[in-house]
Amino acid sequence: MLKTNAFDAAASENVSQSAREMIERRRRLLGPAYQLFYKNPVHLVRGEGVWVFDAAGKKYLDVYNNVPSVGHCHPYVLEALIRQASTLNTHTRYLHDNVLNFAEKLVSTMPPELSQVMFTCTGSEANDLALRIAEDFTGGTGVIITEFSYHGMTKAIAGLSASMGPYVKVNGDARVIPAPVHNPANPAAVGKKFAADVRAALADMRRHGIKPAALMIDTFFTSDGGFFDPAGFLKEAIDEIHKAGALYIADEVQPGYGRSGEHMWGFQRHGVLPDIVSLGKPMGNGHPMAGITIKPHILERFGNESSYFNTFGGNTVSSAVGLAVLEVIEQEALIPSVGRAGKAILDGISELSTRFPAIGSVRGAGLFVSVDFTTAEGEPDSATALAVVNALRDEGVLIGASGPHANILKIRPPLVFTAEHSQILVESLEKVLSKMF
Amino acid sequence: MLKTNAFDAAASENVSQSAREMIERRRRLLGPAYQLFYKNPVHLVRGEGVWVFDAAGKKYLDVYNNVPSVGHCHPYVLEALIRQASTLNTHTRYLHDNVLNFAEKLVSTMPPELSQVMFTCTGSEANDLALRIAEDFTGGTGVIITEFSYHGMTKAIAGLSASMGPYVKVNGDARVIPAPVHNPANPAAVGKKFAADVRAALADMRRHGIKPAALMIDTFFTSDGGFFDPAGFLKEAIDEIHKAGALYIADEVQPGYGRSGEHMWGFQRHGVLPDIVSLGKPMGNGHPMAGITIKPHILERFGNESSYFNTFGGNTVSSAVGLAVLEVIEQEALIPSVGRAGKAILDGISELSTRFPAIGSVRGAGLFVSVDFTTAEGEPDSATALAVVNALRDEGVLIGASGPHANILKIRPPLVFTAEHSQILVESLEKVLSKMF
Repeated sequence: MLKTNAFDAAASENVSQSAREMIERRRRLLGPAYQLFYKNPVHLVRGEGVWVFDAAGKKYLDVYNNVPSVGHCHPYVLEALIRQASTLNTHTRYLHDNVLNFAEKLVSTMPPELSQVMFTCTGSEANDLALRIAEDFTGGTGVIITEFSYHGMTKAIAGLSASMGPYVKVNGDARVIPAPVHNPANPAAVGKKFAADVRAALADMRRHGIKPAALMIDTFFTSDGGFFDPAGFLKEAIDEIHKAGALYIADEVQPGYGRSGEHMWGFQRHGVLPDIVSLGKPMGNGHPMAGITIKPHILERFGNESSYFNTFGGNTVSSAVGLAVLEVIEQEALIPSVGRAGKAILDGISELSTRFPAIGSVRGAGLFVSVDFTTAEGEPDSATALAVVNALRDEGVLIGASGPHANILKIRPPLVFTAEHSQILVESLEKVLSKMF
Repeated sequence: MLKTNAFDAAASENVSQSAREMIERRRRLLGPAYQLFYKNPVHLVRGEGVWVFDAAGKKYLDVYNNVPSVGHCHPYVLEALIRQASTLNTHTRYLHDNVLNFAEKLVSTMPPELSQVMFTCTGSEANDLALRIAEDFTGGTGVIITEFSYHGMTKAIAGLSASMGPYVKVNGDARVIPAPVHNPANPAAVGKKFAADVRAALADMRRHGIKPAALMIDTFFTSDGGFFDPAGFLKEAIDEIHKAGALYIADEVQPGYGRSGEHMWGFQRHGVLPDIVSLGKPMGNGHPMAGITIKPHILERFGNESSYFNTFGGNTVSSAVGLAVLEVIEQEALIPSVGRAGKAILDGISELSTRFPAIGSVRGAGLFVSVDFTTAEGEPDSATALAVVNALRDEGVLIGASGPHANILKIRPPLVFTAEHSQILVESLEKVLSKMF
């Protein structure tokens, strides 16, 4: 997954001298793990709303970044950041209103059962904490994940991120199941198949004497390629997990915060209730913050016994920023707007798919839309997807590709993307495809 | 360790009604893992330099917080935060000068061998990454830690934090050795004993067929209680580790960033060269950021193969803030100032120890000073240490206790603490002890 659309010096195109110098400094100072996007990497210097600008003044529509969730440099969020950072920045072992006001606002967006919050700094830390609690509560060690899952970077969670490739080993007690399929011809089969795969994984754990701890899934299976329909298809699998005495951990780092355009949380699309919800990227509009919400009885023993403390998590500044982001989502009525913008993308690209056979399935929920590129034989066509990604970059649209075959256009802009921006995206894609085909 | 000086409703004193209401909201919203300091928790609302202020306007000298390293709300750091947060906040997969300028400045403070940097958001993530790289490079899984070590909160690193207490199990392949002792009568014995303990742990690993990966130690053993002398005592142990083919991971989250008042990094006090250095708390003056520096040949394979990416780590804003902190340390000549302020504390409290027999050993390096409280029989006296901590709180000085017996006053203020502030601290301690004895 993570090498998709990575810059490769051997296959670079049109890279300026100043960019080459920066790339050389990166190689020297940051080492080989640091990768750049695009054949011709972008040197960004400014952002505003859904727009970013490079050093030469070129303007790009940002269709990639979900972290600046309410838009680059949102003034209301900035004001909250500046006000609190100028006043006091301390951890949660002193009393302060901010962490309480933020926590209260956050749980008010959740089903009432998920009434407690713990704050971390990254989605990786959130999933790592969720895992520790699930293992503590269940006494189990077996976690079910999907075959191209991504849940984070800590040692424990990298071992539950099957998309990391063969070099990063999956935890021995984990079981990897296929991602759900997109099956508009027979939608009822999607949930049945997924539940059957969960059942088989549980049976295999039993066979190996592994006690199940959790099903950890990204509600929209974003790293697997994005699978959304039919709404409700997760229910049967979640019931299986609960019957086995294990927990359902909803990784909402990508599907949460109103991205579906219907609900605040992706799991609400499926009418299911997680035991632990992990949160991350969009939470601070770029400020490093993340966390979990949880049912109190599941947290109780771990919380009392394990002395968990996160130095920066929930500090006065992060809490002010996190509250401001939630207020913007409400004040600007972003969820219905996301729904409209997402529908405009789905409709527009579905129309393009009737004219460009390279486009296979187009599917989505709100402002997460997946567009498969396939060959005439129906095989995944990574080359076309990557050519489209790089052509859109030159056209002034930042976008990425994903999925196990890197053939899926991943459309995941800031939530302030409107139907008007969707129109620009569809027109740019049409222009690029018209040149290619 | 982490329950030291924790608020306990059953033993609370003088807690106001409004504080009680906040404590109840915390219990309901944040759950049992969130602990407060003091018998009468402090409700802080503002900070400036080495001073913090509570909701009633009471002023406290901050002798506890190492996170706001260059002082609460430092204007130069704030300006860098505001400027960059108002311009662009993106990750490291686009080109940007900030991450390069910050990385370059950071490695310029390190021995030349530690020439590459990777950025994370927390010290836990930094140590977790260091562990993954050490295991990858050595092919080993055995890590040596000290008996009251604290290295972080991820599942893997909590298993290498022996101070977490019996509920959090130490990783089965890890070996726990005693912390060094304070032995002014025979300083040469300190390093010999510590090296012998490392040798014994390596021998035990061999006996169990465990391949050693690393010695992971906080250079100042801060969580173990603070052990600093004689300078150089670590050398023999590090040589043993290298002879065994394992790495030396220097956890500089606490001792780094000039805290010693002599060098920028704690390991420099011992004249040793780590293979990986982990950094955290003081790095962003409160902004959530951390990282590692590393020898390139150790990172090479992991960096190429493992697709490590940290969404917020090294983003444009964190990099601007991190650079500003390094610039302040240089511009304000904080390292020599730390040395002077630390010496004033050591001298002042050493003088008090001649008049108050409850004070046992007083030791330190720069602005990390440990003061043991002991009974007449020389046993650790936690009750007195905690009484002093709570009395100092009422006197307007925020401080904590640490160590396996919670009997050690931990003096660890922001680096902008001057000899004048040291005087206030010593006088306040004298006043408190005079009332008690």
